[in-house]
Amino acid sequence: MRWDDLTGEEVFEGIFRQSLAGEQSTVTRYTYAPGSIYPLHQHPEEQITVVHSGQIAFDIAGKRTILTAGSVAIIPGNTPHGAQVIGPETVVTDNYIPAGQRTAPDYR
Amino acid sequence: MRWDDLTGEEVFEGIFRQSLAGEQSTVTRYTYAPGSIYPLHQHPEEQITVVHSGQIAFDIAGKRTILTAGSVAIIPGNTPHGAQVIGPETVVTDNYIPAGQRTAPDYR
Repeated sequence: MRWDDLTGEEVFEGIFRQSLAGEQSTVTRYTYAPGSIYPLHQHPEEQITVVHSGQIAFDIAGKRTILTAGSVAIIPGNTPHGAQVIGPETVVTDNYIPAGQRTAPDYR
Repeated sequence: MRWDDLTGEEVFEGIFRQSLAGEQSTVTRYTYAPGSIYPLHQHPEEQITVVHSGQIAFDIAGKRTILTAGSVAIIPGNTPHGAQVIGPETVVTDNYIPAGQRTAPDYR
């Protein structure tokens, strides 16, 4: 499968995502425009974020970390987190475990 | 965390990997040299492969697919699969669900 073949949605202003569900997990590619903000939130799924390009601040459990290409972050389930692009357009893939409702278009 | 800060191992000739374990899943970055081959194998974990760069043939359940940057593959648990680089050095990240023994250095 190619990301370019998947439909997606704009989840917040400037933040576009496409998702693909397995049986046990969901993988999502996010493209964040410069300056875009994903508000603090939390969810029961474990999240693993791999950064492909760009520069993005992740706030995880109250601590800010700058992620760039070559960064990987594991966010345990039910941990408050948010993100803000502080550099150019940023592309990440997130894996969520377990699978489930995360492919719903309005899921945040 | 940065991939460059993680130790790793050469699992097959020309195939280097680094792993990081969450509670529910493991994420591994593989760097495949040109021409390198990961023999057919299978494991109970679901595997999600995201290609960052390069060009690699994945044989999944007897079918060959060429993956490049922008490709994503979901390989259900217990499905025979293998890989062969057919282009330049190839970098992928694989997520395995559930977590477990996959971070052992000799795990294949």
